[in-house]
Amino acid sequence: MKKDVKKVVLAYSGGLDTSIILKWLQDEYKCEVVTFTADIGQGDELEAAKAKALSLGIKPENIFVEDLKEEFVRNYVFPMFRANAIYEGEYLLGTSIARPLIAKRQAQIAKQTGADGVSHGATGKGNDQVRFELGYYSQNPDLVVIAPWREWDLNSREKLLAYAKANGIDISTKPGKSPYSMDANLLHISYEGLVLEDPANAPENDMWRWVVSPKEAPNESEIIKITYEKGDPVEINGKRLTPAEILTELNRLGAKHGIGRLDIVENRFVGMKSRGCYETPGGTIMLKAHRAIESITLDKGAAHLKDELMPRYAELIYNGFWFSPEREMLQAAIDKTQEHVNGVVELELYKGNVIILGRKSENDSLFDEAFSTFEEDSVYDQTDAKGFIKLNALRFIIAGKNGRKF
Amino acid sequence: MKKDVKKVVLAYSGGLDTSIILKWLQDEYKCEVVTFTADIGQGDELEAAKAKALSLGIKPENIFVEDLKEEFVRNYVFPMFRANAIYEGEYLLGTSIARPLIAKRQAQIAKQTGADGVSHGATGKGNDQVRFELGYYSQNPDLVVIAPWREWDLNSREKLLAYAKANGIDISTKPGKSPYSMDANLLHISYEGLVLEDPANAPENDMWRWVVSPKEAPNESEIIKITYEKGDPVEINGKRLTPAEILTELNRLGAKHGIGRLDIVENRFVGMKSRGCYETPGGTIMLKAHRAIESITLDKGAAHLKDELMPRYAELIYNGFWFSPEREMLQAAIDKTQEHVNGVVELELYKGNVIILGRKSENDSLFDEAFSTFEEDSVYDQTDAKGFIKLNALRFIIAGKNGRKF
Amino acid sequence: MKKDVKKVVLAYSGGLDTSIILKWLQDEYKCEVVTFTADIGQGDELEAAKAKALSLGIKPENIFVEDLKEEFVRNYVFPMFRANAIYEGEYLLGTSIARPLIAKRQAQIAKQTGADGVSHGATGKGNDQVRFELGYYSQNPDLVVIAPWREWDLNSREKLLAYAKANGIDISTKPGKSPYSMDANLLHISYEGLVLEDPANAPENDMWRWVVSPKEAPNESEIIKITYEKGDPVEINGKRLTPAEILTELNRLGAKHGIGRLDIVENRFVGMKSRGCYETPGGTIMLKAHRAIESITLDKGAAHLKDELMPRYAELIYNGFWFSPEREMLQAAIDKTQEHVNGVVELELYKGNVIILGRKSENDSLFDEAFSTFEEDSVYDQTDAKGFIKLNALRFIIAGKNGRKF
Amino acid sequence: MKKDVKKVVLAYSGGLDTSIILKWLQDEYKCEVVTFTADIGQGDELEAAKAKALSLGIKPENIFVEDLKEEFVRNYVFPMFRANAIYEGEYLLGTSIARPLIAKRQAQIAKQTGADGVSHGATGKGNDQVRFELGYYSQNPDLVVIAPWREWDLNSREKLLAYAKANGIDISTKPGKSPYSMDANLLHISYEGLVLEDPANAPENDMWRWVVSPKEAPNESEIIKITYEKGDPVEINGKRLTPAEILTELNRLGAKHGIGRLDIVENRFVGMKSRGCYETPGGTIMLKAHRAIESITLDKGAAHLKDELMPRYAELIYNGFWFSPEREMLQAAIDKTQEHVNGVVELELYKGNVIILGRKSENDSLFDEAFSTFEEDSVYDQTDAKGFIKLNALRFIIAGKNGRKF
Repeated sequence: MKKDVKKVVLAYSGGLDTSIILKWLQDEYKCEVVTFTADIGQGDELEAAKAKALSLGIKPENIFVEDLKEEFVRNYVFPMFRANAIYEGEYLLGTSIARPLIAKRQAQIAKQTGADGVSHGATGKGNDQVRFELGYYSQNPDLVVIAPWREWDLNSREKLLAYAKANGIDISTKPGKSPYSMDANLLHISYEGLVLEDPANAPENDMWRWVVSPKEAPNESEIIKITYEKGDPVEINGKRLTPAEILTELNRLGAKHGIGRLDIVENRFVGMKSRGCYETPGGTIMLKAHRAIESITLDKGAAHLKDELMPRYAELIYNGFWFSPEREMLQAAIDKTQEHVNGVVELELYKGNVIILGRKSENDSLFDEAFSTFEEDSVYDQTDAKGFIKLNALRFIIAGKNGRKF
Repeated sequence: MKKDVKKVVLAYSGGLDTSIILKWLQDEYKCEVVTFTADIGQGDELEAAKAKALSLGIKPENIFVEDLKEEFVRNYVFPMFRANAIYEGEYLLGTSIARPLIAKRQAQIAKQTGADGVSHGATGKGNDQVRFELGYYSQNPDLVVIAPWREWDLNSREKLLAYAKANGIDISTKPGKSPYSMDANLLHISYEGLVLEDPANAPENDMWRWVVSPKEAPNESEIIKITYEKGDPVEINGKRLTPAEILTELNRLGAKHGIGRLDIVENRFVGMKSRGCYETPGGTIMLKAHRAIESITLDKGAAHLKDELMPRYAELIYNGFWFSPEREMLQAAIDKTQEHVNGVVELELYKGNVIILGRKSENDSLFDEAFSTFEEDSVYDQTDAKGFIKLNALRFIIAGKNGRKF
Repeated sequence: MKKDVKKVVLAYSGGLDTSIILKWLQDEYKCEVVTFTADIGQGDELEAAKAKALSLGIKPENIFVEDLKEEFVRNYVFPMFRANAIYEGEYLLGTSIARPLIAKRQAQIAKQTGADGVSHGATGKGNDQVRFELGYYSQNPDLVVIAPWREWDLNSREKLLAYAKANGIDISTKPGKSPYSMDANLLHISYEGLVLEDPANAPENDMWRWVVSPKEAPNESEIIKITYEKGDPVEINGKRLTPAEILTELNRLGAKHGIGRLDIVENRFVGMKSRGCYETPGGTIMLKAHRAIESITLDKGAAHLKDELMPRYAELIYNGFWFSPEREMLQAAIDKTQEHVNGVVELELYKGNVIILGRKSENDSLFDEAFSTFEEDSVYDQTDAKGFIKLNALRFIIAGKNGRKF
Repeated sequence: MKKDVKKVVLAYSGGLDTSIILKWLQDEYKCEVVTFTADIGQGDELEAAKAKALSLGIKPENIFVEDLKEEFVRNYVFPMFRANAIYEGEYLLGTSIARPLIAKRQAQIAKQTGADGVSHGATGKGNDQVRFELGYYSQNPDLVVIAPWREWDLNSREKLLAYAKANGIDISTKPGKSPYSMDANLLHISYEGLVLEDPANAPENDMWRWVVSPKEAPNESEIIKITYEKGDPVEINGKRLTPAEILTELNRLGAKHGIGRLDIVENRFVGMKSRGCYETPGGTIMLKAHRAIESITLDKGAAHLKDELMPRYAELIYNGFWFSPEREMLQAAIDKTQEHVNGVVELELYKGNVIILGRKSENDSLFDEAFSTFEEDSVYDQTDAKGFIKLNALRFIIAGKNGRKF
């Protein structure tokens, strides 16, 4: 029944679950396993993952460990933030945006190593399985996809631990390890499970790992400046940084000031509602700052169309369709608008608040004081408004004259 | 050149500007003036407006003063919040939503008093002229619409004051009167002009009249419960209130805790960008709470479609198309979804933050723990996910097999 | 492995395939079978289906035969045509719209007869399985759904015939039976398979069963009048007819004049492209006529919003989401606009062409000659256009003055 | 009151109306007039326009006559057809798409000749004034725009003729000149006015100038092949042609076979409904052929998104917003999808019908017979459909289990 597969590239974190998967793949599929461990800012030690893979019998040439932080932020996070993407009015898509990159690299490593299969540690109830696998299929439709959580019978914590023990996998928990189901990368941390499974319960305060509670944030606010070029942040307080450095620094600032905690019930692509808590300190600042710089540099028609397209764009990313013609279409439309999104935003960070203090654009501002002030002026003829209104109203006037009521 | 008009219903605040208009209408159009002063929660004294109208020679039977707070919140504010409406990602449409109601009542009073004209005090550069006038035309296309700011030559503060003085209108400023151009109602206060005319400048702290600075908000947070029925808030902390009472109380709570300040550059319908600052304490809480109760009671398909339609809906309201077939279409779609939006949301208010602590719905929750937990279960067959993903990926698989790259 | 099921309601056509399914259900599931045969205008004899069911051992009280033509047209076809629904620019959704009704009745009969299962004859590669099953689940999530084509090993024509023969099912083909895979109802006939499987091949002329070739249609055109009330056709040539009678008569007229043949490649919900040919004579006339009556009675804002929502609405129906909150939302919006869609359309039918000759509405026309003529007039002030254009251009003017190029 | 302007570039057809405008500009504005006559396929003789301009005293160096047919089709018509653009379900935007090009060239000629003004012959009630002027402002916001029809008092046919006579302009009508208000270019001819002003009246058969009546079209059909590259037609019957040649040839074919007549009531941007008749023979063929080639080469996700965006795109063009950031956004999205739209479509033309006979793409077909046939296969696992349906239904299942009804 099992598909015949010779070599499988596993998305490997070095943790207990993917170590069990590693073993299980070897046992069940009798296949060679290639581990791929990416640093996308999750904060785990890559060397530990490497050592663990070696200790589980993976050949050195089959262990891939890579720092993808810059690629992640430059080619995934930043393009997404150009769209001001928010899922269901709240969620900044921190987990969703990381999966396509990992899937793509797995497919590339499969090609490089001659592997015919790929595997991941996402469960059969969540969104991540979809995101990984749509990624795989889009990159190489001939890959055999193995999703152990949907196949095996290790469907409880007890069975998993028993399997690990029986296979010599270290099951000791690291001190301080969170009991929640978590995902982390440079954009965010997510929490699911336990007390969160009842949406009437508030999260416990010690669940949060990154962002300080607004109540415990400094009493002094902090003012920063972010410089944008073509819709992407490139400087903080005048200092030019790489994409990953930008996000790292904004995370530090946001986390310090209690910014970016979120607690929602969301609709999974696979059909059920689920409760999640998220910390997105830098992303929360970027969303606000990007809207601010757009507010003075982006044309109204483009801005409104972007807003109308955004929910669809966010849904595509959430559902795992990053590598799809329709996401690429929308990206082409969005990127077309960002050429002039250049300038500086000044913000104040204070106990969970991101407050815009000012926005300025040397060469691309469309804000023209002459047109909006209250004094008399030569550039704008107020009587134009009469005709503008009259013709906008014309269909109501005709309808009314023909007896129609609103 | 002036149109012939016998009797004009003026939207009259009792302030200096509309008092000048009152006089100017009498002088220029030689017409009878009917004043209409609505209490929509702006906080002005209605009796003063009445007295002022009398003092300017308006006949008692031509003075209309009405408390529209309940109608405003029930039929305008609440329907709009069912849509989670936000203009350009930030603005809660506080001014926009009040104009149609006033325009409609003016048209009704015109009919009642046999007036053939209507007039307002909005300038020729802003959105409000459009909102008023589209409202008038939609209600009665035969009304003569007079927009003094677009017609007269009193196009500077100096000329206005001179005209007032010459016509015996009291020009003394009330102590404490704001120097900003303001609009207020039960949903919000807005500020424009002066230092705000440069979007690089932060607003002065003493500009804000309603919401305390987060920095000066209480150190103790406050926890409240809001009960929703069919998408509208009906109780606070278990106490049933009328719509206007609900909003009044949420305003009190939000204002106390530094919630609902906003500083943006927006795109006016008439074509230029303009800077505005807003205080919407109760609305900010309502938006967050409504999304929270929807998150457990609203179907995903409906929720996503609502999100996609929302920017258009918000734009219609912003532009003044409340009384339009297309706004009514969208409202029909939105209202259709709210039948099951029933339940209670618990929130914590703290220094500018609105934090969701829990959501619960006795009879309408679609959150089903059995489907989202991590343990094995009988309701959900994880192997279904394989087929779900495979067919979602099918077009990528076929494309890939035919040589197409993503 | 088979689910335990006691009584199954089968969507039964009386043809070979569903007769085999009937038998197979009895054999494999050891369950009682209830047959449901609906007349939705497919042109089969219902009595024959009844006799066949009896001959296959179904108890008389388990045989349900119903004429659903009026319900089909009134509650499914007409609401859909109010939206001017077209899938992928071409397809009038003839098959898609019939499945929800059948699924709903199956669920109701299951309740009535105490059945715990439902079954259909759609294959595992097509859209109809989805439409049936989404219908079942939406009506009763506890029903066991049996899709024999996805379960059995009768996966070739030969095996099917062998099974039928072995089980005493008559496999003689009716004279004149089409070799194509067909679906028919009062709205359309569809053809798939055989020579059509290569999209480079034109269909054979003798494939078409309903609509005469334009080349063989009468040389004399025919002029008809259709009267609309609230967006639905209610009279043809002044004669009031029921919904099914309207569609029957329009089918007769269209078929006679070579109207409504279509040959397309479409995207199935399950992910592949497929070639289909369709005959929709009455529907093709209705689409054109409905647009014509809307053109004089529907407000522009509503009309444009309808057009923007239509592709989504059509996609929902195509994909099987008739019974979904989002389809109901859109229907509410669409129906809201049809109140004034009243009047008469005159059309000429000629060799495949549907030519609009005129449209008239006694009380609901928004066409006002006074506003569109070329002569001078009092209702429209041409100078209003100057202001209208100027303010629509304002953002380009400001952008241009600030150096931006288009 | 008249603006001060020294030199004006007039869009000059050589006809009576624009000749009157020419004279009127000289008289009223005392300005130098530059005439610009573009050949966009309207069929007028350019030399005659040149001679007329000379005869009215225009200096030779101020007479610009240009053949823009290739630019028109390549950069305006073809990009629009990539979108399958249709306004209000029927209109192929023949007039709308020509205006931006003319406006752009006028602005360029103004720059070249040092002119400070531009002028056109569109009336104050129609769409064309908007399209011209939005074009002017987008290209150069400092141009003075003169719209004589909105300014002068020559607001009846009689006054116009009197003015012409008084100014020595030849008012003799060309034999065979249509009495309708017409616009023509390589994409279409439009008719307005006279008997058409009542939408209940059918057009007279002798109104149509281009497309033969289906009744008078040949009894023999004609089969053609169109080759597409990146979404644009490049060959007819295997012969490579330039864009304008392609459209010219398709016009000849369509006109011969009675294809592309249209009679509609449309909603003008300026607010009223208006009746128009159109002949778009080549465009009607192109729309059908483009959809056919897309049907086998375009991904479903991209195709559906295109369809959803299309009405907005068409509205933008109709309203005159060709040169706008939002049209450019949409164009970027559309063009992104056309890379693989390569192949050949075979069509039959017969008495008003455009019948697709086949579509084929050597390298870019996504139609894969293996996936859509009825026989057993290895590429598609029918049991995948079960999971696909189950998870698509999951929200209905959960809703149903929680008591919700659809």
